[in-house]
Amino acid sequence: MQGRGCFIAFEGGEGAGKSTQARLLAEALRGRSLSVVTTREPGGTPGAEAVRSLLLSPPGESWTAEAEALLFAAARADHVARLIRPALARGDWVICDRFVDSSRAYQGWAGGLGDEAILGLHAFGSDGLRPDLVILLEGDEAALAARLAARGAETDAIEGRPATYHRAVAAAFRSLADNDPQGFARIEASGTPQEVHARIMAAIADLLGGGWA
Amino acid sequence: MQGRGCFIAFEGGEGAGKSTQARLLAEALRGRSLSVVTTREPGGTPGAEAVRSLLLSPPGESWTAEAEALLFAAARADHVARLIRPALARGDWVICDRFVDSSRAYQGWAGGLGDEAILGLHAFGSDGLRPDLVILLEGDEAALAARLAARGAETDAIEGRPATYHRAVAAAFRSLADNDPQGFARIEASGTPQEVHARIMAAIADLLGGGWA
Repeated sequence: MQGRGCFIAFEGGEGAGKSTQARLLAEALRGRSLSVVTTREPGGTPGAEAVRSLLLSPPGESWTAEAEALLFAAARADHVARLIRPALARGDWVICDRFVDSSRAYQGWAGGLGDEAILGLHAFGSDGLRPDLVILLEGDEAALAARLAARGAETDAIEGRPATYHRAVAAAFRSLADNDPQGFARIEASGTPQEVHARIMAAIADLLGGGWA
Repeated sequence: MQGRGCFIAFEGGEGAGKSTQARLLAEALRGRSLSVVTTREPGGTPGAEAVRSLLLSPPGESWTAEAEALLFAAARADHVARLIRPALARGDWVICDRFVDSSRAYQGWAGGLGDEAILGLHAFGSDGLRPDLVILLEGDEAALAARLAARGAETDAIEGRPATYHRAVAAAFRSLADNDPQGFARIEASGTPQEVHARIMAAIADLLGGGWA
């Protein structure tokens, strides 16, 4: 591939299969001899991973909504400057598990800070970088909750929030996708991982180009 | 004291004597039976102190200017919400070693991000809280550098920046004070600690009220 690489973000609630699908997509792209960087948010660089630890395990009381949004934006600024932009400049594909639309859905909508504030922080911190395509994994809420519970792990400071918060997050993601149909692919998350993966490969056919699809 | 307490911030370059003077002022106010909270930035709460560690010892490469400004704003949002506003609401005096004008001077002016961006982050994170009075300690640059060197300690990620950066910081503080003569008291930092303390007590006479001055 020549020129700037392609930037794909996976979004959706907890338990939707983002990590699994990001891995399957990376494997498929590497199988086509593309150079692929997989990463995640919050995190992805040493600085951003340190901020991630503070976000998921607050050292004092829980963070205020504003402090939380500022920490996410700080982690993202480091991640974009130190990892994502250099990879794209090399012509690599970048596959990221969550990006700015998670901040918009969680802190902006469900957290009540508003979309404009989150976009303002992103414009300041990361010059407003957008993915070429956001793959939004959407599933039946009850099924997602069951998948999350089956992990058996303790929840972190954000996963542990009430169901109303997570329903607001899901509604926010739907609204973001509806308002930007070119930028989002809404993918049904039910079925086997390979079934979902096939839907994703169909959705990125345009990015791969006719010869590859 | 009745009603909201009084919020005083100390500002100035490294080595100007802010910590010493904050302590002497707190002792003097407590001697007048006032309830005083002393604190510092970045830091002051468990969350903000954790962010302070990341700022002064970056886990990866150095932070970008934008990430650094976002981290300072996040620490300040926690500090204001969890410590400063509750103390002021109780009627306490709050004496803080550095506050938002340090972000304006260091990141906004010397760091090139601009004053508007820093004020925007402060409006978002901390609802734009201003001190009742900023005490700006100003001294001969050569004398301050000598005092700093005499500490013999290793410098952190910000103290270790070049002299041109620190001269820009000093110029920025002067400009901020000149543009807000009601909000700033410019205090000459030369002389003994007690001599500087006497200048500060004169400068806060109005805040103490006629009966106390």
